[in-house]
Amino acid sequence: MKIIQEIPALKTEIRSYKQQNQSIGFVPTMGFLHEGHISLLEEARKHHDKVVLSIFVNPLQFGPTEDLDRYPRDFKRDEQIANELGVDLLFYPSVEEMYPTTPSMTIHVTQGVNVLCGASRPGHFDGVTTVVMKLFMLVQPDKAYFGQKDAQQVAVITNMVNMFNVPVEIVPCPTIREEDGLAKSSRNVYLSALERLEAPSIYKTLHEAVLLMDEGETNPSRMIQFVQNKLQELPLAEIDYIELLAYPSLHEVDEIKEAIVLAVALKYKKARLIDNVIVNKGE
Amino acid sequence: MKIIQEIPALKTEIRSYKQQNQSIGFVPTMGFLHEGHISLLEEARKHHDKVVLSIFVNPLQFGPTEDLDRYPRDFKRDEQIANELGVDLLFYPSVEEMYPTTPSMTIHVTQGVNVLCGASRPGHFDGVTTVVMKLFMLVQPDKAYFGQKDAQQVAVITNMVNMFNVPVEIVPCPTIREEDGLAKSSRNVYLSALERLEAPSIYKTLHEAVLLMDEGETNPSRMIQFVQNKLQELPLAEIDYIELLAYPSLHEVDEIKEAIVLAVALKYKKARLIDNVIVNKGE
Repeated sequence: MKIIQEIPALKTEIRSYKQQNQSIGFVPTMGFLHEGHISLLEEARKHHDKVVLSIFVNPLQFGPTEDLDRYPRDFKRDEQIANELGVDLLFYPSVEEMYPTTPSMTIHVTQGVNVLCGASRPGHFDGVTTVVMKLFMLVQPDKAYFGQKDAQQVAVITNMVNMFNVPVEIVPCPTIREEDGLAKSSRNVYLSALERLEAPSIYKTLHEAVLLMDEGETNPSRMIQFVQNKLQELPLAEIDYIELLAYPSLHEVDEIKEAIVLAVALKYKKARLIDNVIVNKGE
Repeated sequence: MKIIQEIPALKTEIRSYKQQNQSIGFVPTMGFLHEGHISLLEEARKHHDKVVLSIFVNPLQFGPTEDLDRYPRDFKRDEQIANELGVDLLFYPSVEEMYPTTPSMTIHVTQGVNVLCGASRPGHFDGVTTVVMKLFMLVQPDKAYFGQKDAQQVAVITNMVNMFNVPVEIVPCPTIREEDGLAKSSRNVYLSALERLEAPSIYKTLHEAVLLMDEGETNPSRMIQFVQNKLQELPLAEIDYIELLAYPSLHEVDEIKEAIVLAVALKYKKARLIDNVIVNKGE
C-alpha cells in the first residue's frame, strides 16, 4: 500500500492508474476507521482495480462550537486496517496541503441542509461538499462509496454530483447493524445496559414503517405519526427528530410516491443515535 | 462540426475523444462571438486534437437588475464562425438541460469578488464559477481558454481550479486590440467620434504604467495615482475605477513584488470601457 501525503505525488500515481485504464474505487473518510468504513472498503475492493482511501479531518466542516482538535485520530491503526483490506493508495494530506491558503470559495449548499442533522449544523455541508469535490478532482474515481447510515451526507453528495455533472458514480452502502438490528456506531458504547436493550427498537420501528409503506401507505404525516407513537413508548430515549423526505433531494413531500428517506435521531443519556431507511416507491 | 444540445450525447462524444487519447481544448462562451472569442478558438485549434466550443447564456450569473432576455444572441452566425474556425464540437444546451431543477447548491466565491467589476455585480461570480465547473466536468478539457480582457473572470476561474484541484489548465489569452491600442469590444461602436479618438489613451496610460513598474516602481498607491492623473486629463471619460491587485488572488497589495493586475473602467456617454495589464514581477 502506498501512503501519499502530497498532492503532486498523488497526481502522479492517479495518472499512472489512468494510463493503465485501471478503474478506481474511492472511500473518503476522516479516519478512525470502524466497521462502516471497512464495509465500504470491502465493497470497493470487489469492484475496482485500485482502491483509494483518503483520511483527512476536514476543518471546513466543523462549526465554531464543534471541537476539531478533539476529533479522534489513530493513524497507525487506520494504516494497518487499510493494509489488511488491500487498499492500494492511502491519501493522508495535511491541512496545509489541502488548504494552502484561506479558501477563495466554497460550495454553498442551499437544498437539503436545514433538515435532519443538518438543521443543527449550519454550514456543515458546505464544508463536506467542498472537500469531497476537491478529493474527487484529485482522485478521479470511477465510483465513490458512502455509508447510508449518514443518509443526509449521501444525499447531499449525490445532489452535488448531479448539480455539477461530476463524472463520479456515488455508491450508497447499507448501514451495518448488530444482530438485533441496532445500527453500528462508535457511540453505542456510551449506552447503559438498559439503553442498549431498548435501542434495537429504533430499527424495529423503522422496519415496521417500511412494511406499512410497502403495503400501500402513502401519507407522510401518518407515517411520521406511526413512528412517533412507537418511539414515544420507549422509556429511556428522547426523540430529537423524525423526518420523511424525498431522496436524495431532501425536499418535503405531500405523498410517498418516489424515493424517500425516513430518518430519526434519538437522544440517550450519553449518546445520540441516528438511523434511517430508504424506500423507493418509484422502482 | 457536431452540434450537441443534450448532455448524454455530449458525454458519449467526450468519452470517444478520451478513448482515442485526443487532447481537448475548450472555449466556454455565451455566444454572439466576436474577435476575442475567435482569437481563443484559433489558439485552441493550434494546440489540441479536438476543439470544443460551448454557447450557453447562463441565467445564474445575471443579477436581478440585469436583463437576461435582452442578452444578444445569433446562433446561426455563431455556428458559421465556429464551423469556419474548425471547431469539432459545439455544445449548445438549453437552460433546462443545464439546470433541470432549481440548483441545490452553487459555488460561492468569497475572495476577489468585491473588487473591479464584481463590486457592482454581487453574486455574479458565483454564477460564473458554478456554470464553468459544470462545463469543465462535462467537457473534461485538457486546457480552457479565456480572454485576459475580463481579468477578473480569468482570475476567479484560475482560483476555482486551484481551490478545487480541477484537472484543467486555464490559458489566459491576450486582449485583442485595435491598431491604436484600444481594446476591442462590441461596445466601441457606441463611442462618439471624439470619444473614439480619446479612448486609445486608456491603454497608452496602462502601457506607461507597465514601463514605470518595469523600471522599478513598487508602490501601488503611486502607480494608481499616476494612472489617475493621466486618465483625469481625458476630457470626455469619467473614471469608474482604477485598481491594482495581486493576480490571480485579487488581494490588495502593499508592494508590487509578484504578479499584479492593473485594471481600469471608464464611462463614456453610451459605453463603459474596461482594460487591464498584468505585470509579473515574480518572473
